[in-house]
Amino acid sequence: MRVLGVDPGLTRCGVGVVEGVPGRPLTMLGVGVVRTPVDADLAHRLVAVEQGIEGWLDEHHPEYVAVERVFSQHNVRTVMGTAQASAVAMLCAARRGIPVALHTPSEVKAAVTGTGRADKAQVGAMVTRLLRLDAPPRPADAADALALAICHIWRAPAQNRLQQAVALHTSKGRSA
Amino acid sequence: MRVLGVDPGLTRCGVGVVEGVPGRPLTMLGVGVVRTPVDADLAHRLVAVEQGIEGWLDEHHPEYVAVERVFSQHNVRTVMGTAQASAVAMLCAARRGIPVALHTPSEVKAAVTGTGRADKAQVGAMVTRLLRLDAPPRPADAADALALAICHIWRAPAQNRLQQAVALHTSKGRSA
Repeated sequence: MRVLGVDPGLTRCGVGVVEGVPGRPLTMLGVGVVRTPVDADLAHRLVAVEQGIEGWLDEHHPEYVAVERVFSQHNVRTVMGTAQASAVAMLCAARRGIPVALHTPSEVKAAVTGTGRADKAQVGAMVTRLLRLDAPPRPADAADALALAICHIWRAPAQNRLQQAVALHTSKGRSA
Repeated sequence: MRVLGVDPGLTRCGVGVVEGVPGRPLTMLGVGVVRTPVDADLAHRLVAVEQGIEGWLDEHHPEYVAVERVFSQHNVRTVMGTAQASAVAMLCAARRGIPVALHTPSEVKAAVTGTGRADKAQVGAMVTRLLRLDAPPRPADAADALALAICHIWRAPAQNRLQQAVALHTSKGRSA
């Protein structure tokens, strides 16, 4: 399973590609940050995010895109830009027919460190260990994107079973 | 000046095209609503909004797109979807090179009714009068989109002069 993780943001949008299956060593295929100029207007920043994400999709052909679920209880000023950058990432994936999964920050932290209250350093350390890297990816947004991809690889089987159970129960015939 | 107004939303995204210049009677060229299914997942709803907006841009070739500026102090649940739908509208316009303008709800109300605290019915009544329609456009999102377009036509000259003054003052050479 090849997953592009996206830690959405307008100034720095973390992106990371991980390949693997649960229970086996994981492989990092790429990591980076899509940046947009702080002094550009919002519409042009969104176009720059789109171009960046498209480049990553073109290069790595992920089977899934995992995006951090944005909550509005955070800093009110930055959360709108984060929500809008995440919309662009979801749009890019969905119009190519790539399934999009949303994971909360605490789900991601719990997946890679065992606790939903881990700090940035802990997440970076575990990403480094799990992907057998020489050093934690910088900036933190890049490490968070890799953590999202890892989280999706490990959580996806359970999520799919849950979706199948819900589909059977509601008799809507939906399945993952 | 031909303006596409967009009242962003995931369930109902109001769209309206108005042509005119300040001080002359305005003409409505089209009005409608882009709808997306409430039970679809977020990524696919954003794709549906994109397809809808693209259709309006293809049909009417506006010179400007005016989008309601989203504030996060509103209902926390709906504001994220509104912010994400507005991101898609801005993206569609900007990647075609169409300038995007953001206007706040109170700027729009003040422009068409004379008061920033007007209610939906007042805005609908003034839009009906200014565009010489037989009845207020339904739903209210469609009327709001037309009001945004009217607001932009009337405010744009002042905004442009202001931007030019700022550009001169800061010696950055930016101009509208």
